[in-house]
Amino acid sequence: MIYLDYSATTPVDKSALDSFNNVSENYIGNPNSLHKLGLESHKLLSASTNQVADLLKVKSSEVIFTSGASESNNLAIFGVINEYKNRGKHIITTKLEHSSVLEPMKYLEKNGYKIDYVNIDSDGKIDLNHLKSLLNDETILVSICEVNSEIGLIQDVNEIGKIINNYPKCIFHVDGTQAIGKKLINLDNIDLYSFSAHKFYGLKGVGCLIKKDDIKLSPIIHGGKSQTIYRSGTPTLALDVSLAKALRITFDNFNERYSKVLELNKYLKDELNKINSIKINSNDRCVPHIINLSIPGVKPETMLHALEQDDIYISTKTACSDKEDESLSVLEFTKDHTLASSSIRISLSYLTTKNDIDTFINSFKKNVNNLKGLDSNGLR
Amino acid sequence: MIYLDYSATTPVDKSALDSFNNVSENYIGNPNSLHKLGLESHKLLSASTNQVADLLKVKSSEVIFTSGASESNNLAIFGVINEYKNRGKHIITTKLEHSSVLEPMKYLEKNGYKIDYVNIDSDGKIDLNHLKSLLNDETILVSICEVNSEIGLIQDVNEIGKIINNYPKCIFHVDGTQAIGKKLINLDNIDLYSFSAHKFYGLKGVGCLIKKDDIKLSPIIHGGKSQTIYRSGTPTLALDVSLAKALRITFDNFNERYSKVLELNKYLKDELNKINSIKINSNDRCVPHIINLSIPGVKPETMLHALEQDDIYISTKTACSDKEDESLSVLEFTKDHTLASSSIRISLSYLTTKNDIDTFINSFKKNVNNLKGLDSNGLR
Repeated sequence: MIYLDYSATTPVDKSALDSFNNVSENYIGNPNSLHKLGLESHKLLSASTNQVADLLKVKSSEVIFTSGASESNNLAIFGVINEYKNRGKHIITTKLEHSSVLEPMKYLEKNGYKIDYVNIDSDGKIDLNHLKSLLNDETILVSICEVNSEIGLIQDVNEIGKIINNYPKCIFHVDGTQAIGKKLINLDNIDLYSFSAHKFYGLKGVGCLIKKDDIKLSPIIHGGKSQTIYRSGTPTLALDVSLAKALRITFDNFNERYSKVLELNKYLKDELNKINSIKINSNDRCVPHIINLSIPGVKPETMLHALEQDDIYISTKTACSDKEDESLSVLEFTKDHTLASSSIRISLSYLTTKNDIDTFINSFKKNVNNLKGLDSNGLR
Repeated sequence: MIYLDYSATTPVDKSALDSFNNVSENYIGNPNSLHKLGLESHKLLSASTNQVADLLKVKSSEVIFTSGASESNNLAIFGVINEYKNRGKHIITTKLEHSSVLEPMKYLEKNGYKIDYVNIDSDGKIDLNHLKSLLNDETILVSICEVNSEIGLIQDVNEIGKIINNYPKCIFHVDGTQAIGKKLINLDNIDLYSFSAHKFYGLKGVGCLIKKDDIKLSPIIHGGKSQTIYRSGTPTLALDVSLAKALRITFDNFNERYSKVLELNKYLKDELNKINSIKINSNDRCVPHIINLSIPGVKPETMLHALEQDDIYISTKTACSDKEDESLSVLEFTKDHTLASSSIRISLSYLTTKNDIDTFINSFKKNVNNLKGLDSNGLR
């Protein structure tokens, strides 16, 4: 089996799973309980919180554990608009966002908010002049993904954060779900930062929202005070510990893993560039882990299922997007409907081997030729 | 160690944890992915959903997996009030609810909703005549816990549901978190039903909201369509499978486990009744798993820490309640501030032994006498 869909979800790291099991079996007290068993659980929860905070260079009070990135994104967006509803009703985002940002925006648009989508330039970079022109005294929130999930485009969220700092009433949320483990991150100029563990070899069902201390949020899950007042519910201790573990492993091994993926990316792109009938959408500004390409005339699902016959697994768009014909991200970046309706995503990991790439390339070439009615030299 | 705080959280059942591990290691595809690995995960998700539905005698389309009971309660409440906001602004609940129901109510009260708390009679039963008198054409939601978490009081939610059926615009939500595994349940006359796995030997971080097909909800976590349109996010497959497993084990062993707890409850109550200086608050209408009692003149925290010295773990109020002096539930039921400010909760499991009870009783008697300045015969 050749799995090239690591941006949809990653296999769990053995030691993150071991941590989960250890905590599930040995820490039976509810961290909210007042007795010793509760306090032992609470102590471990604090230790995990501190570890996440240290790794991200934020304060422990700034870490909110959630059930995953979708909850984190929704908590960031609705938390801000409910807490600061008297400040204004203008929000800025992009068309490169994940559905867990785009859908809240659509909901808010129907409920009296003005949503502006900032332009993307031909390099895939947010047009900072356009952003500046959109920002005004009514803008309460800017929400931008650090790494786009379909193409892998990176935004310089620090540079954007500095611009937003000129608007003290405006809060800056960054969806970092595809950034953690794929690039070095710096949360200095960011107010709110979302991510989930299962994108970096952690378990599904846990994520974080980093919330700087000077920002308030109205919770979306109200209840008794739990780990923080911003998110109620029995703390998910074993999941939280496993997230901290997965994050530490990811950060400890960042350079080595990144170099390996970069090398694989170059090798794969060189091979893909030899195929005339496709167009690689991901450019040099993208994380090396994601390669998006279009095969004009071939439906993404058709290619996905053809590769599946050879036990190779890639993706069309993101796993969570609706089943529309076009990729919103590819359309926004390329402005080309043909490319947007024929794109696939190959996503790499440090677990990927050169042999995997060779097998993929052979199968991919064969299938491109078959599906486009070409001979084995790629000629009609 | 003698753990008598099972209503705060239960230790995880070995086979529910095994299921979690099996799925985490062997189902790497995101259930939202279109390829075979995704479909295999999706198939297993459907099987777990069907299993939960079969056990609860509802339809598969009526099962929504969430991160736990706090999210389920919030989704039920905010989901209804946002979806049906044009129907009215009146909600009925009780003062016996968990903080994840009471806090949303407080929030809504500040935001223009009228919240009525239905009276409890001297038996701890909801006053149905009072309920009938409160219901009107503006009532959009009634939210009532089937089993109160502090005292264990059971409400006949079926009888209540039948009354609410006369108000077709009103939706009936039941918090079943403390009911599952502690009594037989019947969701026939209930529109929305919340629970979480960690109260019945499942893992922390997963729960359900059962939503009957004729009810709509506005999501609190918006995004791409996932398991259902009512809750976005990458499905937490391994957690969901482990919940289904824990629920099946709980239902399969219900009678045997219930009889054992009932027997322990009677034995414990008989012993407690011999102590003059305490008052047992839980009555015969309570689940046998929860025994709430007051020790007038002794602070609950003091008794908790005294028992802790003998490696015995009980609870003051619920783990998730705020650290106010009084128990809201005990006050509501007894109308007595002395009892409400001196109550503790002992919660039993099928894992509890008669020997545990004996050890508890010895330590408890010793500590009651010590803390109240009595001799070993309980005399001054």
